[in-house]
Amino acid sequence: MPKTPVTVLGLGSMGSALAGAFLAAGHPATVWNRTASKADPLVARGAHRAGTIEDAVRESPLIVACLTTYEDTRAVLEPASLAGRALVALNSGSPAGARRMADWAAERGARFLDGAVKNIPSAVGAPDTLLYYGGDKAVFDEHVDTLRVLGGDTVHLGEEADLAALYETAVGGTLLPALVGFFQGAAALRSRGLEAETLLPYATKWFEMIISVLPMYAKEIDTGDYSDPAASVGIFHAGAAADLELAEEGVDVDWQRPLHDLVRRAAEAGHGDRSIAVLTELLSVGAEGSSTTAKRR
Amino acid sequence: MPKTPVTVLGLGSMGSALAGAFLAAGHPATVWNRTASKADPLVARGAHRAGTIEDAVRESPLIVACLTTYEDTRAVLEPASLAGRALVALNSGSPAGARRMADWAAERGARFLDGAVKNIPSAVGAPDTLLYYGGDKAVFDEHVDTLRVLGGDTVHLGEEADLAALYETAVGGTLLPALVGFFQGAAALRSRGLEAETLLPYATKWFEMIISVLPMYAKEIDTGDYSDPAASVGIFHAGAAADLELAEEGVDVDWQRPLHDLVRRAAEAGHGDRSIAVLTELLSVGAEGSSTTAKRR
Repeated sequence: MPKTPVTVLGLGSMGSALAGAFLAAGHPATVWNRTASKADPLVARGAHRAGTIEDAVRESPLIVACLTTYEDTRAVLEPASLAGRALVALNSGSPAGARRMADWAAERGARFLDGAVKNIPSAVGAPDTLLYYGGDKAVFDEHVDTLRVLGGDTVHLGEEADLAALYETAVGGTLLPALVGFFQGAAALRSRGLEAETLLPYATKWFEMIISVLPMYAKEIDTGDYSDPAASVGIFHAGAAADLELAEEGVDVDWQRPLHDLVRRAAEAGHGDRSIAVLTELLSVGAEGSSTTAKRR
Repeated sequence: MPKTPVTVLGLGSMGSALAGAFLAAGHPATVWNRTASKADPLVARGAHRAGTIEDAVRESPLIVACLTTYEDTRAVLEPASLAGRALVALNSGSPAGARRMADWAAERGARFLDGAVKNIPSAVGAPDTLLYYGGDKAVFDEHVDTLRVLGGDTVHLGEEADLAALYETAVGGTLLPALVGFFQGAAALRSRGLEAETLLPYATKWFEMIISVLPMYAKEIDTGDYSDPAASVGIFHAGAAADLELAEEGVDVDWQRPLHDLVRRAAEAGHGDRSIAVLTELLSVGAEGSSTTAKRR
Protein backbone atom coordinates (compact mmCIF):
# COMPACT_ATOMS: atom_id res chain seq x y z
CA MET A 1 0.00 0.00 0.00
CA PRO A 2 1.40 3.43 -0.86
CA LYS A 3 2.34 5.56 2.11
CA THR A 4 0.25 8.66 2.71
CA PRO A 5 2.05 11.84 1.66
CA VAL A 6 2.56 14.19 4.61
CA THR A 7 3.41 17.87 4.81
CA VAL A 8 5.27 19.13 7.88
CA LEU A 9 5.12 22.85 8.65
CA GLY A 10 7.69 24.25 11.04
CA LEU A 11 11.16 22.72 11.22
CA GLY A 12 12.39 23.49 14.69
CA SER A 13 13.97 20.59 16.56
CA MET A 14 10.58 18.89 17.04
CA GLY A 15 9.23 19.57 13.55
CA SER A 16 12.45 18.30 12.00
CA ALA A 17 12.22 15.15 14.11
CA LEU A 18 8.62 14.61 12.95
CA ALA A 19 9.53 15.06 9.28
CA GLY A 20 12.55 12.79 9.74
CA ALA A 21 10.35 10.06 11.22
CA PHE A 22 7.95 10.25 8.25
CA LEU A 23 10.89 10.04 5.83
CA ALA A 24 12.40 7.11 7.72
CA ALA A 25 9.08 5.27 7.45
CA GLY A 26 8.94 5.82 3.69
CA HIS A 27 6.27 8.54 3.55
CA PRO A 28 6.56 11.15 0.80
CA ALA A 29 7.24 14.22 2.91
CA THR A 30 6.88 17.86 1.96
CA VAL A 31 8.46 20.35 4.31
CA TRP A 32 8.09 24.07 4.78
CA ASN A 33 9.74 26.50 7.12
CA ARG A 34 9.78 30.28 7.23
CA THR A 35 13.58 30.15 7.11
CA ALA A 36 13.84 27.77 4.17
CA SER A 37 17.41 26.67 4.87
CA LYS A 38 16.22 24.76 7.95
CA ALA A 39 14.84 22.21 5.49
CA ASP A 40 18.27 21.42 4.03
CA PRO A 41 19.06 18.31 6.12
CA LEU A 42 15.59 16.91 5.41
CA VAL A 43 15.84 17.67 1.70
CA ALA A 44 19.15 15.80 1.71
CA ARG A 45 17.24 12.84 3.12
CA GLY A 46 14.61 12.98 0.37
CA ALA A 47 12.05 15.53 1.52
CA HIS A 48 10.39 17.87 -0.96
CA ARG A 49 10.90 21.54 -0.12
CA ALA A 50 7.76 23.58 -0.75
CA GLY A 51 8.42 27.08 -2.03
CA THR A 52 5.22 28.53 -0.60
CA ILE A 53 2.74 27.58 2.09
CA GLU A 54 0.09 27.17 -0.64
CA ASP A 55 2.26 24.56 -2.36
CA ALA A 56 3.07 22.87 0.92
CA VAL A 57 -0.61 22.38 1.75
CA ARG A 58 -1.49 21.29 -1.80
CA GLU A 59 1.10 18.48 -1.80
CA SER A 60 -0.43 16.24 0.88
CA PRO A 61 -3.82 15.24 2.28
CA LEU A 62 -2.32 15.27 5.78
CA ILE A 63 -0.76 18.48 7.13
CA VAL A 64 1.19 18.35 10.38
CA ALA A 65 1.87 21.79 11.82
CA CYS A 66 4.59 22.09 14.45
CA LEU A 67 4.89 25.83 14.90
CA THR A 68 5.40 27.58 18.21
CA THR A 69 1.81 28.65 18.95
CA TYR A 70 -1.70 28.34 17.52
CA GLU A 71 -1.45 32.00 16.51
CA ASP A 72 1.68 31.23 14.49
CA THR A 73 -0.08 28.25 12.92
CA ARG A 74 -3.03 30.35 11.81
CA ALA A 75 -0.80 33.14 10.53
CA VAL A 76 1.29 30.70 8.48
CA LEU A 77 -1.75 28.87 7.06
CA GLU A 78 -3.72 32.04 6.27
CA PRO A 79 -2.96 32.07 2.49
CA ALA A 80 -3.49 28.32 1.97
CA SER A 81 -6.62 26.49 0.88
CA LEU A 82 -7.43 24.00 3.62
CA ALA A 83 -10.74 22.61 2.36
CA GLY A 84 -10.82 18.83 2.80
CA ARG A 85 -7.35 18.70 4.28
CA ALA A 86 -6.63 16.81 7.50
CA LEU A 87 -4.84 19.35 9.68
CA VAL A 88 -2.96 18.18 12.76
CA ALA A 89 -1.59 20.83 15.12
CA LEU A 90 1.25 19.63 17.34
CA ASN A 91 2.29 22.93 18.86
CA SER A 92 1.85 23.42 22.58
CA GLY A 93 -0.88 25.68 23.82
CA SER A 94 -3.78 26.03 26.18
CA PRO A 95 -7.13 24.24 25.96
CA ALA A 96 -8.77 27.59 25.17
CA GLY A 97 -6.21 28.12 22.41
CA ALA A 98 -7.00 24.69 20.99
CA ARG A 99 -10.73 25.50 20.96
CA ARG A 100 -10.07 28.73 19.04
CA MET A 101 -7.81 26.86 16.63
CA ALA A 102 -10.45 24.18 16.04
CA ASP A 103 -13.08 26.83 15.28
CA TRP A 104 -10.74 28.51 12.81
CA ALA A 105 -9.92 25.21 11.09
CA ALA A 106 -13.63 24.36 10.79
CA GLU A 107 -14.34 27.74 9.19
CA ARG A 108 -11.65 26.94 6.63
CA GLY A 109 -13.16 23.55 5.85
CA ALA A 110 -10.27 21.58 7.34
CA ARG A 111 -10.78 18.40 9.34
CA PHE A 112 -8.88 19.03 12.55
CA LEU A 113 -6.94 17.15 15.17
CA ASP A 114 -5.00 18.77 17.97
CA GLY A 115 -2.22 16.66 19.41
CA ALA A 116 0.77 16.68 21.69
CA VAL A 117 4.12 14.92 21.55
CA LYS A 118 4.79 13.83 25.11
CA ASN A 119 8.53 13.43 24.73
CA ILE A 120 11.69 15.10 23.45
CA PRO A 121 12.58 15.33 19.74
CA SER A 122 15.12 12.51 19.88
CA ALA A 123 12.40 10.14 21.11
CA VAL A 124 10.13 10.77 18.11
CA GLY A 125 9.52 7.51 16.25
CA ALA A 126 10.27 5.21 19.20
CA PRO A 127 7.78 2.43 19.98
CA ASP A 128 6.93 3.74 23.46
CA THR A 129 6.81 7.45 22.61
CA LEU A 130 3.41 8.88 23.53
CA LEU A 131 1.38 11.26 21.41
CA TYR A 132 -2.26 11.97 22.09
CA TYR A 133 -4.90 13.69 20.03
CA GLY A 134 -8.29 15.27 20.52
CA GLY A 135 -10.77 16.07 17.77
CA ASP A 136 -12.27 14.46 14.67
CA LYS A 137 -12.21 10.70 15.29
CA ALA A 138 -12.74 9.92 11.61
CA VAL A 139 -9.55 11.82 10.72
CA PHE A 140 -7.67 9.99 13.46
CA ASP A 141 -8.87 6.59 12.25
CA GLU A 142 -8.05 7.43 8.65
CA HIS A 143 -4.48 8.47 9.46
CA VAL A 144 -3.66 6.49 12.59
CA ASP A 145 -1.06 4.29 10.83
CA THR A 146 0.73 7.38 9.59
CA LEU A 147 0.50 9.17 12.93
CA ARG A 148 1.85 6.09 14.71
CA VAL A 149 5.09 6.58 12.78
CA LEU A 150 5.77 9.45 15.21
CA GLY A 151 5.44 7.25 18.30
CA GLY A 152 4.12 3.78 18.98
CA ASP A 153 1.91 4.95 21.83
CA THR A 154 -0.59 7.00 19.83
CA VAL A 155 -3.93 7.69 21.53
CA HIS A 156 -7.23 9.41 20.64
CA LEU A 157 -8.62 11.07 23.76
CA GLY A 158 -12.03 12.08 22.44
CA GLU A 159 -13.92 14.16 19.91
CA GLU A 160 -13.36 17.46 21.64
CA ALA A 161 -10.50 19.29 20.00
CA ASP A 162 -9.13 20.72 23.25
CA LEU A 163 -8.63 17.41 25.06
CA ALA A 164 -5.01 16.97 24.01
CA ALA A 165 -4.21 20.50 25.13
CA LEU A 166 -6.13 19.91 28.36
CA TYR A 167 -4.16 16.74 29.13
CA GLU A 168 -0.96 18.33 27.88
CA THR A 169 -1.23 21.27 30.25
CA ALA A 170 -2.51 18.97 33.01
CA VAL A 171 0.45 16.62 32.63
CA GLY A 172 3.05 19.07 31.39
CA GLY A 173 2.50 21.44 34.30
CA THR A 174 4.87 19.32 36.34
CA LEU A 175 7.84 19.81 34.00
CA LEU A 176 9.11 23.29 34.75
CA PRO A 177 8.54 23.05 38.52
CA ALA A 178 10.19 19.62 38.68
CA LEU A 179 13.16 20.80 36.62
CA VAL A 180 13.58 23.99 38.63
CA GLY A 181 13.54 21.84 41.77
CA PHE A 182 16.35 19.78 40.27
CA PHE A 183 18.29 22.86 39.13
CA GLN A 184 17.95 24.35 42.61
CA GLY A 185 19.39 21.15 44.04
CA ALA A 186 22.24 21.29 41.55
CA ALA A 187 22.89 24.91 42.53
CA ALA A 188 23.02 23.91 46.20
CA LEU A 189 25.57 21.18 45.49
CA ARG A 190 27.65 23.52 43.34
CA SER A 191 27.89 25.93 46.22
CA ARG A 192 29.79 23.14 47.99
CA GLY A 193 31.89 22.18 44.99
CA LEU A 194 29.85 19.02 44.39
CA GLU A 195 28.82 17.92 40.91
CA ALA A 196 25.21 17.85 39.76
CA GLU A 197 25.99 14.37 38.49
CA THR A 198 26.18 13.15 42.12
CA LEU A 199 22.49 14.04 42.46
CA LEU A 200 21.39 11.70 39.68
CA PRO A 201 21.00 8.37 41.50
CA TYR A 202 19.07 10.06 44.30
CA ALA A 203 16.98 12.29 42.06
CA THR A 204 16.09 9.28 39.90
CA LYS A 205 14.94 7.29 42.92
CA TRP A 206 13.05 10.28 44.19
CA PHE A 207 11.12 10.77 40.94
CA GLU A 208 10.40 7.03 40.88
CA MET A 209 9.00 7.41 44.38
CA ILE A 210 6.86 10.32 43.19
CA ILE A 211 5.55 8.17 40.31
CA SER A 212 4.72 5.41 42.78
CA VAL A 213 2.54 7.64 44.96
CA LEU A 214 0.52 9.28 42.16
CA PRO A 215 -2.14 6.53 42.03
CA MET A 216 -2.73 7.01 45.77
CA TYR A 217 -3.13 10.76 45.29
CA ALA A 218 -5.39 10.31 42.25
CA LYS A 219 -7.64 8.04 44.30
CA GLU A 220 -7.80 10.57 47.14
CA ILE A 221 -8.69 13.31 44.65
CA ASP A 222 -11.32 11.22 42.83
CA THR A 223 -12.98 10.06 46.06
CA GLY A 224 -12.52 13.35 47.92
CA ASP A 225 -11.25 11.35 50.89
CA TYR A 226 -8.06 12.93 52.23
CA SER A 227 -8.38 11.49 55.73
CA ASP A 228 -5.64 8.81 55.70
CA PRO A 229 -2.53 10.67 54.57
CA ALA A 230 0.84 9.10 53.77
CA ALA A 231 2.14 12.69 53.84
CA SER A 232 0.00 15.35 55.46
CA VAL A 233 -0.32 19.06 54.80
CA GLY A 234 1.15 19.53 58.29
CA ILE A 235 4.31 17.61 57.40
CA PHE A 236 4.85 19.78 54.32
CA HIS A 237 4.04 22.89 56.33
CA ALA A 238 6.66 21.95 58.93
CA GLY A 239 9.22 21.29 56.19
CA ALA A 240 8.74 24.62 54.43
CA ALA A 241 11.09 26.51 56.73
CA ALA A 242 13.88 24.01 56.07
CA ASP A 243 13.30 24.30 52.31
CA LEU A 244 13.76 28.05 52.58
CA GLU A 245 16.91 27.63 54.69
CA LEU A 246 18.53 26.34 51.52
CA ALA A 247 19.07 30.05 50.90
CA GLU A 248 21.94 29.76 53.41
CA GLU A 249 23.68 27.49 50.89
CA GLY A 250 23.76 30.29 48.31
CA VAL A 251 20.60 29.35 46.43
CA ASP A 252 17.67 31.48 45.29
CA VAL A 253 14.61 29.84 46.85
CA ASP A 254 12.07 32.58 46.22
CA TRP A 255 10.29 30.59 43.49
CA GLN A 256 9.11 28.19 46.23
CA ARG A 257 7.22 30.81 48.23
CA PRO A 258 3.82 30.51 46.51
CA LEU A 259 3.99 26.74 47.01
CA HIS A 260 4.56 27.25 50.70
CA ASP A 261 1.77 29.82 50.79
CA LEU A 262 -0.55 27.22 49.29
CA VAL A 263 0.43 24.69 51.96
CA ARG A 264 0.04 27.31 54.69
CA ARG A 265 -3.42 28.24 53.43
CA ALA A 266 -4.39 24.57 53.47
CA ALA A 267 -3.13 24.23 57.04
CA GLU A 268 -4.98 27.37 58.11
CA ALA A 269 -8.17 26.04 56.50
CA GLY A 270 -8.01 23.07 58.88
CA HIS A 271 -6.48 20.55 56.48
CA GLY A 272 -3.28 20.03 58.53
CA ASP A 273 -3.97 16.35 59.23
CA ARG A 274 -5.19 15.62 55.71
CA SER A 275 -3.28 14.36 52.72
CA ILE A 276 -1.25 16.91 50.76
CA ALA A 277 -3.48 15.98 47.80
CA VAL A 278 -6.15 18.21 49.35
CA LEU A 279 -4.23 21.05 47.67
CA THR A 280 -6.17 20.02 44.56
CA GLU A 281 -9.28 21.47 46.23
CA LEU A 282 -7.52 24.79 46.84
CA LEU A 283 -6.31 24.90 43.24
CA SER A 284 -9.86 24.38 41.92
CA VAL A 285 -11.04 27.95 41.93
CA GLY A 286 -14.04 27.63 39.67
CA ALA A 287 -14.96 24.92 37.25
CA GLU A 288 -16.63 26.18 34.10
CA GLY A 289 -18.03 22.77 33.21
CA SER A 290 -18.24 21.55 29.66
CA SER A 291 -19.13 18.21 28.19
CA THR A 292 -16.44 15.73 27.28
CA THR A 293 -16.26 12.28 25.76
CA ALA A 294 -13.78 10.73 28.17
CA LYS A 295 -14.31 9.01 31.50
CA ARG A 296 -16.54 10.91 33.91
CA ARG A 297 -16.35 11.34 37.65
CA MET B 1 25.53 -12.68 66.74
CA PRO B 2 23.17 -10.78 69.03
CA LYS B 3 21.32 -7.95 67.34
CA THR B 4 22.22 -4.43 68.46
CA PRO B 5 19.58 -2.91 70.75
CA VAL B 6 18.09 0.23 69.23
CA THR B 7 16.05 3.06 70.73
CA VAL B 8 13.64 4.93 68.47
CA LEU B 9 12.47 8.38 69.58
CA GLY B 10 9.38 9.82 67.95
CA LEU B 11 6.60 7.51 66.77
CA GLY B 12 4.88 9.37 64.00
CA SER B 13 4.18 7.37 60.86
CA MET B 14 7.87 7.31 59.89
CA GLY B 15 9.23 6.68 63.40
CA SER B 16 6.75 3.84 63.89
CA ALA B 17 7.81 2.33 60.56
CA LEU B 18 11.48 2.52 61.61
CA ALA B 19 10.81 0.86 64.97
CA GLY B 20 8.67 -1.77 63.27
CA ALA B 21 11.49 -2.59 60.86
CA PHE B 22 13.95 -3.05 63.74
CA LEU B 23 11.48 -5.33 65.52
CA ALA B 24 10.84 -7.34 62.36
CA ALA B 25 14.60 -7.86 62.00
CA GLY B 26 14.89 -9.14 65.56
CA HIS B 27 16.53 -6.13 67.19
CA PRO B 28 15.65 -5.38 70.80
CA ALA B 29 13.82 -2.08 70.37
CA THR B 30 13.06 0.55 72.95
CA VAL B 31 10.54 3.20 71.93
CA TRP B 32 9.64 6.59 73.31
CA ASN B 33 7.08 9.14 72.27
CA ARG B 34 5.80 12.27 73.96
CA THR B 35 2.27 10.86 73.71
CA ALA B 36 3.07 7.43 75.15
CA SER B 37 0.01 5.69 73.72
CA LYS B 38 1.46 5.98 70.21
CA ALA B 39 3.83 3.18 71.27
CA ASP B 40 0.98 0.71 71.90
CA PRO B 41 1.07 -1.11 68.53
CA LEU B 42 4.86 -1.46 68.76
CA VAL B 43 4.72 -2.66 72.38
CA ALA B 44 2.20 -5.28 71.20
CA ARG B 45 4.86 -6.42 68.73
CA GLY B 46 7.53 -6.73 71.41
CA ALA B 47 8.99 -3.26 71.79
CA HIS B 48 10.01 -1.97 75.22
CA ARG B 49 8.25 1.27 76.17
CA ALA B 50 10.63 3.67 77.96
CA GLY B 51 8.96 5.71 80.69
CA THR B 52 11.36 8.63 80.37
CA ILE B 53 13.77 9.93 77.76
CA GLU B 54 16.65 9.18 80.17
CA ASP B 55 15.60 5.52 80.28
CA ALA B 56 15.10 5.43 76.53
CA VAL B 57 18.65 6.61 75.86
CA ARG B 58 20.14 4.35 78.55
CA GLU B 59 18.64 1.19 77.01
CA SER B 60 20.55 1.14 73.71
CA PRO B 61 23.95 2.09 72.28
CA LEU B 62 22.19 3.27 69.10
CA ILE B 63 19.58 6.02 69.31
CA VAL B 64 17.49 6.81 66.24
CA ALA B 65 15.59 10.09 66.56
CA CYS B 66 12.70 10.67 64.18
CA LEU B 67 11.15 13.85 65.52
CA THR B 68 9.81 16.68 63.39
CA THR B 69 12.77 19.08 63.56
CA TYR B 70 16.31 19.30 64.91
CA GLU B 71 14.98 21.74 67.53
CA ASP B 72 12.46 19.12 68.68
CA THR B 73 15.23 16.52 68.78
CA ARG B 74 17.43 18.69 71.00
CA ALA B 75 14.51 19.62 73.27
CA VAL B 76 13.53 15.98 73.75
CA LEU B 77 17.12 14.81 74.38
CA GLU B 78 18.01 17.68 76.71
CA PRO B 79 17.63 15.67 79.99
CA ALA B 80 19.39 12.54 78.70
CA SER B 81 23.03 11.55 79.05
CA LEU B 82 24.35 11.08 75.52
CA ALA B 83 28.03 10.45 76.25
CA GLY B 84 29.30 7.59 74.09
CA ARG B 85 25.94 7.01 72.43
CA ALA B 86 25.60 6.76 68.66
CA LEU B 87 22.89 9.29 67.82
CA VAL B 88 21.23 9.16 64.39
CA ALA B 89 18.87 11.99 63.47
CA LEU B 90 16.38 11.13 60.74
CA ASN B 91 14.18 14.22 60.85
CA SER B 92 14.09 16.49 57.88
CA GLY B 93 15.82 19.84 58.07
CA SER B 94 18.22 22.18 56.39
CA PRO B 95 21.98 21.71 56.00
CA ALA B 96 22.49 24.63 58.41
CA GLY B 97 20.18 22.92 60.89
CA ALA B 98 22.17 19.69 60.58
CA ARG B 99 25.41 21.58 61.29
CA ARG B 100 23.91 23.09 64.45
CA MET B 101 22.62 19.67 65.49
CA ALA B 102 26.03 18.07 64.96
CA ASP B 103 27.70 20.76 67.09
CA TRP B 104 25.18 20.19 69.87
CA ALA B 105 25.64 16.41 69.75
CA ALA B 106 29.43 16.80 69.90
CA GLU B 107 29.13 19.04 72.97
CA ARG B 108 27.09 16.29 74.62
CA GLY B 109 29.68 13.65 73.84
CA ALA B 110 27.48 11.79 71.35
CA ARG B 111 28.81 10.29 68.14
CA PHE B 112 26.53 11.68 65.47
CA LEU B 113 25.09 10.75 62.11
CA ASP B 114 22.48 12.76 60.28
CA GLY B 115 20.43 10.81 57.78
CA ALA B 116 17.40 10.92 55.54
CA VAL B 117 14.85 8.32 54.58
CA LYS B 118 14.24 8.87 50.87
CA ASN B 119 10.88 7.14 50.72
CA ILE B 120 7.48 6.87 52.38
CA PRO B 121 6.91 5.01 55.68
CA SER B 122 5.41 1.93 54.02
CA ALA B 123 8.64 1.47 52.03
CA VAL B 124 10.85 1.32 55.16
CA GLY B 125 12.65 -2.03 55.29
CA ALA B 126 12.42 -2.77 51.56
CA PRO B 127 15.60 -3.85 49.74
CA ASP B 128 15.66 -0.87 47.40
CA THR B 129 14.65 1.80 49.90
CA LEU B 130 17.30 4.52 50.03
CA LEU B 131 18.63 6.14 53.19
CA TYR B 132 21.76 8.24 53.21
CA TYR B 133 23.87 9.55 56.04
CA GLY B 134 26.49 12.18 56.65
CA GLY B 135 28.81 12.36 59.65
CA ASP B 136 31.04 10.08 61.71
CA LYS B 137 32.13 7.26 59.37
CA ALA B 138 33.23 5.07 62.29
CA VAL B 139 29.70 5.15 63.70
CA PHE B 140 28.28 4.33 60.30
CA ASP B 141 30.62 1.36 59.83
CA GLU B 142 29.90 0.09 63.33
CA HIS B 143 26.13 0.15 62.84
CA VAL B 144 25.71 -0.26 59.08
CA ASP B 145 24.15 -3.73 59.38
CA THR B 146 21.57 -2.39 61.79
CA LEU B 147 20.90 0.72 59.71
CA ARG B 148 20.47 -1.39 56.58
CA VAL B 149 17.43 -2.96 58.25
CA LEU B 150 15.64 0.30 57.42
CA GLY B 151 16.38 0.06 53.70
CA GLY B 152 18.70 -2.03 51.56
CA ASP B 153 20.14 1.00 49.79
CA THR B 154 22.01 2.55 52.73
CA VAL B 155 24.78 5.02 51.82
CA HIS B 156 27.40 7.10 53.69
CA LEU B 157 27.89 10.39 51.84
CA GLY B 158 30.89 11.71 53.75
CA GLU B 159 32.22 12.84 57.11
CA GLU B 160 30.44 16.17 57.11
CA ALA B 161 27.30 15.96 59.17
CA ASP B 162 25.25 18.21 56.89
CA LEU B 163 25.71 16.19 53.69
CA ALA B 164 22.53 14.15 54.11
CA ALA B 165 20.52 17.30 54.73
CA LEU B 166 22.23 18.96 51.77
CA TYR B 167 21.35 16.09 49.43
CA GLU B 168 17.94 15.76 51.03
CA THR B 169 17.03 19.36 50.34
CA ALA B 170 18.73 19.20 46.93
CA VAL B 171 16.75 16.12 45.92
CA GLY B 172 13.60 16.70 47.92
CA GLY B 173 13.10 20.19 46.53
CA THR B 174 11.39 18.63 43.55
CA LEU B 175 8.63 16.97 45.56
CA LEU B 176 6.23 19.76 46.44
CA PRO B 177 6.53 21.52 43.05
CA ALA B 178 6.08 18.24 41.16
CA LEU B 179 3.07 17.28 43.28
CA VAL B 180 1.45 20.70 42.98
CA GLY B 181 1.95 20.42 39.22
CA PHE B 182 0.10 17.10 39.31
CA PHE B 183 -2.63 18.46 41.60
CA GLN B 184 -3.10 21.43 39.28
CA GLY B 185 -3.53 19.00 36.40
CA ALA B 186 -6.06 17.02 38.40
CA ALA B 187 -7.93 20.24 39.19
CA ALA B 188 -8.03 21.11 35.48
CA LEU B 189 -9.47 17.69 34.61
CA ARG B 190 -12.02 17.92 37.43
CA SER B 191 -13.28 21.18 36.01
CA ARG B 192 -14.29 19.11 32.96
CA GLY B 193 -15.71 16.22 34.98
CA LEU B 194 -12.71 14.01 34.20
CA GLU B 195 -11.09 11.80 36.82
CA ALA B 196 -7.57 12.39 38.12
CA GLU B 197 -7.07 8.67 37.53
CA THR B 198 -7.16 9.32 33.76
CA LEU B 199 -3.99 11.41 34.18
CA LEU B 200 -1.96 8.55 35.63
CA PRO B 201 -0.65 6.81 32.49
CA TYR B 202 0.37 10.14 30.99
CA ALA B 203 1.80 11.59 34.18
CA THR B 204 3.79 8.41 34.74
CA LYS B 205 5.29 8.56 31.25
CA TRP B 206 5.98 12.23 31.71
CA PHE B 207 7.90 11.73 34.94
CA GLU B 208 9.81 8.87 33.31
CA MET B 209 10.71 11.29 30.53
CA ILE B 210 11.87 13.82 33.13
CA ILE B 211 14.05 11.13 34.74
CA SER B 212 15.52 10.29 31.34
CA VAL B 213 16.67 13.85 30.67
CA LEU B 214 18.26 14.55 34.08
CA PRO B 215 21.68 13.10 33.11
CA MET B 216 21.77 15.43 30.10
CA TYR B 217 20.96 18.42 32.31
CA ALA B 218 23.50 17.36 34.96
CA LYS B 219 26.18 17.20 32.29
CA GLU B 220 25.25 20.65 30.99
CA ILE B 221 25.42 22.03 34.53
CA ASP B 222 28.72 20.33 35.38
CA THR B 223 30.40 21.42 32.14
CA GLY B 224 28.73 24.84 32.01
CA ASP B 225 27.95 24.20 28.33
CA TYR B 226 24.30 25.05 27.65
CA SER B 227 24.78 25.63 23.92
CA ASP B 228 23.07 22.52 22.46
CA PRO B 229 19.63 22.51 24.07
CA ALA B 230 17.04 19.76 23.76
CA ALA B 231 14.64 22.29 25.27
CA SER B 232 15.65 25.92 25.26
CA VAL B 233 14.81 28.78 27.60
CA GLY B 234 12.97 30.31 24.65
CA ILE B 235 10.68 27.29 24.26
CA PHE B 236 9.74 27.46 27.95
CA HIS B 237 9.33 31.23 27.70
CA ALA B 238 6.93 30.81 24.75
CA GLY B 239 4.99 28.15 26.66
CA ALA B 240 4.50 30.21 29.80
CA ALA B 241 1.49 32.07 28.47
CA ALA B 242 -0.27 28.80 27.65
CA ASP B 243 0.49 27.47 31.13
CA LEU B 244 -1.18 30.52 32.63
CA GLU B 245 -4.18 30.14 30.30
CA LEU B 246 -5.03 27.06 32.34
CA ALA B 247 -6.70 29.65 34.58
CA GLU B 248 -9.51 29.63 31.99
CA GLU B 249 -10.19 26.02 33.01
CA GLY B 250 -10.97 27.09 36.57
CA VAL B 251 -7.55 26.46 38.04
CA ASP B 252 -5.39 28.64 40.29
CA VAL B 253 -2.09 29.01 38.41
CA ASP B 254 -0.54 31.80 40.47
CA TRP B 255 2.00 29.47 42.08
CA GLN B 256 3.68 29.17 38.65
CA ARG B 257 4.42 32.88 38.27
CA PRO B 258 7.87 32.94 39.93
CA LEU B 259 8.91 30.02 37.71
CA HIS B 260 7.89 31.99 34.65
CA ASP B 261 9.66 35.05 36.01
CA LEU B 262 12.81 32.97 36.30
CA VAL B 263 12.49 31.82 32.69
CA ARG B 264 11.77 35.38 31.54
CA ARG B 265 14.84 36.69 33.39
CA ALA B 266 16.94 34.00 31.70
CA ALA B 267 15.56 34.98 28.29
CA GLU B 268 16.19 38.66 28.98
CA ALA B 269 19.76 37.87 30.03
CA GLY B 270 20.38 36.48 26.55
CA HIS B 271 19.96 32.78 27.34
CA GLY B 272 16.95 32.28 25.03
CA ASP B 273 18.74 29.82 22.74
CA ARG B 274 20.43 27.98 25.60
CA SER B 275 19.28 24.91 27.49
CA ILE B 276 16.71 25.41 30.22
CA ALA B 277 19.37 23.99 32.59
CA VAL B 278 21.01 27.42 32.49
CA LEU B 279 18.44 28.35 35.15
CA THR B 280 20.87 26.68 37.56
CA GLU B 281 23.17 29.66 37.03
CA LEU B 282 20.38 32.10 37.90
CA LEU B 283 19.51 30.11 41.02
CA SER B 284 23.14 30.22 42.23
CA VAL B 285 23.08 33.54 44.01
CA GLY B 286 26.19 33.21 46.09
CA ALA B 287 28.12 30.17 47.09
CA GLU B 288 29.52 30.35 50.59
CA GLY B 289 32.04 27.59 49.92
CA SER B 290 32.91 24.98 52.49
CA SER B 291 35.00 21.88 52.29
CA THR B 292 33.41 18.51 51.67
CA THR B 293 34.55 14.93 51.39
CA ALA B 294 32.49 13.94 48.35
CA LYS B 295 33.23 14.23 44.65
CA ARG B 296 34.51 17.64 43.56
CA ARG B 297 33.85 19.64 40.46
